[in-house]
Amino acid sequence: MTTRSDSGTQRRSATPTDADLAQLLGLDAATADFADVRARLAAVAAAPAGVGAGAARRALVAPGLAEAPGDLAALEHALDSRLAAEAEAVAAAVADGKARSAERLALVRAEMARQDLAGFLVPLADEHQSEYVPPSAQRLAWLTGFTGSAGMAVVLAEEAAIFVDGRYTLAVRDQVQVGLFVPHHSADAPAGPWAAARLGPGARLGFDPWLHTRSGLASLRSAVERVGAQLVAVDRNPVDVAWANRPAPPLSPVIVQPLARAGEAAVDKCQRLGTTLGAEGIDAALLTAPDSIAWLLNVRGADVPCNPLPLSFALLHKSGHVDWFVDPRKTGPDVRGHLGNLVTLHAPDSLPAALDALGAAKARVRLDQATAAVALADRLEAAGASVSHGADPCALPKATKNAVELAGIRDAHARDGVALARFLAWLARTAPAGGLDELTVSDRLESFRAAHPWYRGGSFDTISGAGPNGAIVHYRATPATNRVLAPGSLYLVDSGAQYADGTTDVTRTLAIGPPSAEHRDRFTRVLKGHIALARARFPRGTTGSQLDVLARLSLWEAGLDYDHGTGHGVGHFLCVHEGPHRISKIANSVALEPGMVVSNEPGYYRTGAYGIRIENLVAVIDGPAIPGGERPMLAFESLTLAPIDRTLINPALLSPAEILWLDTYHARVLRTLRPWLEGEDLAWLVAATAGIGG
Amino acid sequence: MTTRSDSGTQRRSATPTDADLAQLLGLDAATADFADVRARLAAVAAAPAGVGAGAARRALVAPGLAEAPGDLAALEHALDSRLAAEAEAVAAAVADGKARSAERLALVRAEMARQDLAGFLVPLADEHQSEYVPPSAQRLAWLTGFTGSAGMAVVLAEEAAIFVDGRYTLAVRDQVQVGLFVPHHSADAPAGPWAAARLGPGARLGFDPWLHTRSGLASLRSAVERVGAQLVAVDRNPVDVAWANRPAPPLSPVIVQPLARAGEAAVDKCQRLGTTLGAEGIDAALLTAPDSIAWLLNVRGADVPCNPLPLSFALLHKSGHVDWFVDPRKTGPDVRGHLGNLVTLHAPDSLPAALDALGAAKARVRLDQATAAVALADRLEAAGASVSHGADPCALPKATKNAVELAGIRDAHARDGVALARFLAWLARTAPAGGLDELTVSDRLESFRAAHPWYRGGSFDTISGAGPNGAIVHYRATPATNRVLAPGSLYLVDSGAQYADGTTDVTRTLAIGPPSAEHRDRFTRVLKGHIALARARFPRGTTGSQLDVLARLSLWEAGLDYDHGTGHGVGHFLCVHEGPHRISKIANSVALEPGMVVSNEPGYYRTGAYGIRIENLVAVIDGPAIPGGERPMLAFESLTLAPIDRTLINPALLSPAEILWLDTYHARVLRTLRPWLEGEDLAWLVAATAGIGG
Repeated sequence: MTTRSDSGTQRRSATPTDADLAQLLGLDAATADFADVRARLAAVAAAPAGVGAGAARRALVAPGLAEAPGDLAALEHALDSRLAAEAEAVAAAVADGKARSAERLALVRAEMARQDLAGFLVPLADEHQSEYVPPSAQRLAWLTGFTGSAGMAVVLAEEAAIFVDGRYTLAVRDQVQVGLFVPHHSADAPAGPWAAARLGPGARLGFDPWLHTRSGLASLRSAVERVGAQLVAVDRNPVDVAWANRPAPPLSPVIVQPLARAGEAAVDKCQRLGTTLGAEGIDAALLTAPDSIAWLLNVRGADVPCNPLPLSFALLHKSGHVDWFVDPRKTGPDVRGHLGNLVTLHAPDSLPAALDALGAAKARVRLDQATAAVALADRLEAAGASVSHGADPCALPKATKNAVELAGIRDAHARDGVALARFLAWLARTAPAGGLDELTVSDRLESFRAAHPWYRGGSFDTISGAGPNGAIVHYRATPATNRVLAPGSLYLVDSGAQYADGTTDVTRTLAIGPPSAEHRDRFTRVLKGHIALARARFPRGTTGSQLDVLARLSLWEAGLDYDHGTGHGVGHFLCVHEGPHRISKIANSVALEPGMVVSNEPGYYRTGAYGIRIENLVAVIDGPAIPGGERPMLAFESLTLAPIDRTLINPALLSPAEILWLDTYHARVLRTLRPWLEGEDLAWLVAATAGIGG
Repeated sequence: MTTRSDSGTQRRSATPTDADLAQLLGLDAATADFADVRARLAAVAAAPAGVGAGAARRALVAPGLAEAPGDLAALEHALDSRLAAEAEAVAAAVADGKARSAERLALVRAEMARQDLAGFLVPLADEHQSEYVPPSAQRLAWLTGFTGSAGMAVVLAEEAAIFVDGRYTLAVRDQVQVGLFVPHHSADAPAGPWAAARLGPGARLGFDPWLHTRSGLASLRSAVERVGAQLVAVDRNPVDVAWANRPAPPLSPVIVQPLARAGEAAVDKCQRLGTTLGAEGIDAALLTAPDSIAWLLNVRGADVPCNPLPLSFALLHKSGHVDWFVDPRKTGPDVRGHLGNLVTLHAPDSLPAALDALGAAKARVRLDQATAAVALADRLEAAGASVSHGADPCALPKATKNAVELAGIRDAHARDGVALARFLAWLARTAPAGGLDELTVSDRLESFRAAHPWYRGGSFDTISGAGPNGAIVHYRATPATNRVLAPGSLYLVDSGAQYADGTTDVTRTLAIGPPSAEHRDRFTRVLKGHIALARARFPRGTTGSQLDVLARLSLWEAGLDYDHGTGHGVGHFLCVHEGPHRISKIANSVALEPGMVVSNEPGYYRTGAYGIRIENLVAVIDGPAIPGGERPMLAFESLTLAPIDRTLINPALLSPAEILWLDTYHARVLRTLRPWLEGEDLAWLVAATAGIGG
């Protein structure tokens, strides 16, 4: 299912020129009106195409297209063609970083010299510290060619380095010219000491204050200040000066998340949170996390891949009133009607003036240090505001799903479970014949999900890892790495979907043909960890950090472990990674509360051989009453509904309680999914969910 | 075994007067020399009598007593008699707080008025934030009558309140005049808002900067500053002004901890830690924790009960040199010889000048905010020093015992195990006849321990709780609360000893007669938690916070829990509570490292009925190699050697692995202790450690 067929036309012509398009729109290509169309084309093309968003994207480019004088079908086709071409131009504007780094580095250094900077930081970051950044923020890829999901370059006058984490220490050597950007492991050889060793007293190391948080800069700042150098916030980012065809910020339609799916009206959320702020003596909270704003205002968007949100800032006042700084082209009359008097819309570039006004009023403003750009706290403080550093006030309420959200999330998981069952049944039928590869299989998985009208795309890039590729925790299959699912190997697939009523994230590990004894031993240990967490009862006040060990103990007993967290929070048709809770070795003081959704995903990885991970999403719920129990206990409800490969389980390693959990879970999977399945898919599911408890 | 019989005399005469004593010493009672004797008497009497310290205490009072002209035995007896009488005077000087609070409150308020203070804080604290404070620091008891181990009064001009934690909310109502000091639960109704509600703008709330840490004051400070009042550090503590017969600071002999027991020479420790400080750019560390100094310098003392340490401050310079601020009367020639050129001794009152000198030298000084008095950071900063807030540099090395310390700790536990076995065998023989009470039993336990020449007293006040008293987590038996160990009840005894080579802490819960099914269910769940922790294998980097859940899970499964930590660090012939590690629900970032000693003490308490706790000390060790294991794992070695009551175990609730652990542990208890036992004690131990695994 693709968006391009929405127009119903089958024509395959050359990309329409400005003149063609202007004619179809009844405009003169030389007018300001058409310049506006051109700007919209570039901005819409900088947002992902999205699923089923064709008509909305066309309407964003040409709001009045229904009144256009010409052939509507032709106009629609022309817009789609131009958007496709513009999207290619956006991709091209970000690409070629490796081949052209010398030239781009020279341009950046020239601007650094003009600004008297001895060095400049180029992180992969946008103004919101987003997980997915738009093309306009892909400065690191443009400059160096590096396309990993985290990293930073430090450019000095004569040398430059790139700092990446353990996931990317190998890939970075392929992607960048190591003669221009010397790669470093950001944990073992961080940027601060590297820069400090090369900067003399008085040297100015520049950074873009919109792309860093204070805490993120702290260690770098202390390292360079120890040698007498200084960190300097710049007004003009040298990369932006050098990057001639830098893409526009993305433009995608804001859509309303109806009350029937959100469960609480935006006005009620704003009043509730505003009152709390007021009680804490805070005048306003500056919201910098786009997903917080999307949750608060019951809106969604499509500015970046996988995270269905509009990029924006907002001020939530203690009165409950919201000033929303969002591109006005994104919001149609429906959105404005939905927001009503609660929200005042502002152009994004009016945010600094609004901060100045708060300062002039000597307001006390809440800011989340973990995510807020340096520029914001600096501006507030310079203007005279009192900054109250603390958690984003939306973070905890957003994480704690209400009954309506949970109902939607359960529905989304049943729907996802049906797609998964069809996929797994297909794989079981098809894989033995051989020849399936990672990309084919993950495409097929997406097609099963996309069959549902509420599907809104993937919630992250699928990890489809055969054999040794499964051992790469953040693997992304490419044509170059694409492996065949070979008999005797394991296949790991970690994927998720956005539906209009919920977000999913599930990992299954499958035996392709008969598994080895080691495969079964390791898989069963991972399963024991998964079950220990899934079965846990715990009192209120318990954090995910406290529970993490449950998922690891069976591995530790065998001298094994895994080097990633055990669980991350998940949004409601929002980000697949959200805080403030998590299940992890790393200390986290946020208690698990009923309504929170979190993943349960222990794993085991043998480098060069195979990877195992078993992931369900779970919701924190009030536990069932326990006879003789004295304290109310919380528990997890498994949301994900998909069989766990029984051929990989060694039942001798499971306790009766563990077997009971597994059989009960599988019985529920079958009971929930069977009405939607038939024929060989259903037969496969019946067999795949049969009890192992005898 | 008591110290008083050391003198060998049986005379029971009246307390000798000054004149008697002066005559025996060959002094004139009117001279300065005898005034010094009097001062020493008062100070020695303010320290606990200690075990076997009679001669040393006498020598502290009269260093030249061997050369005294008179009858040495008579002099010794006279000194002992006077010390006993002085100790009673010290106790009397602290007592009667409840009866006399009105009068004392008036005196304190008069001094507050002279200092223009609207209020004053009276915490239970000394200059070191010690767990056990000397009589001179028992201002809270003197003023209010409250004798719990933690609390604070806030005295205002017209009203006063006392803030205690959940352990003491009942006891405080008996101990204080609630009309004068309104009791509050410190967590539910903290002092800050209480004071803030009563103080107007500009009001001065005084505090003694030697008795508070900055972090301890933080919430109180923000509460009172919100209403425009201010916290003011005072030079003269109004309580000290009002307390006419306030006891002297304690005076006890410093003794050398020989290298054969310490395992690392003081000079090596000082050099090692000094070098680390230097590498961090720190000139000196101000050590405020007396146990850190005792560990660093390989000395011990007896200034307070249970914690064998001299109260003192020290400066550890990056050169490794130490300035030690300790009462010069405490250190004899042996100690001075031991310390050699490494340490310069200073009178305690010269510490402020030494801080000023560091300030004048613009030194960077490490200070541990968690324990350092406000006065110290203030003084350093005012003098121009740069304060580096960070962990006490001794804390981690002290916690990480070396091989010699561990060997001593194992020996101490074998010795303690023999005493426990004799005690438990005696109890098993004697309890069925009925009539034993809590105080009788705990005295008997002490007598078994005191039989060993290396015994140096209890490591804390024994908790001896029969029936419902066992459910009071911090119970201390008194003649008023003393219960009989009744058939059908449980008896909980939590006790520990100081030996010259190690510190012990053990809890056992015993069935007096046949236990109920509920007793056995709960006991077995607690045991499962104990075993889960004892058996754990975990990678380096794991903290006690991560492991805590293992001790609770079997209780959580039944809807039960306990409201205390699972484990605390334990010193080497030092404090029974030491950091920086612990096993607790509360997040703690300190990883467990080989050599650390920590308690494993899950429990269950049914208020009004019974309490259960099973506590062993364990040492963190490198775990045994695991076939097929990929990562080195750490493990716990159980140090405590004492049977766990088999009659309280329901084997049906234990897994085979748990039964194997228990039987293996019991076999080791028997193997280690049997050479030291005989007759009915040995027969009892053989039966008590028999396998339940069949």
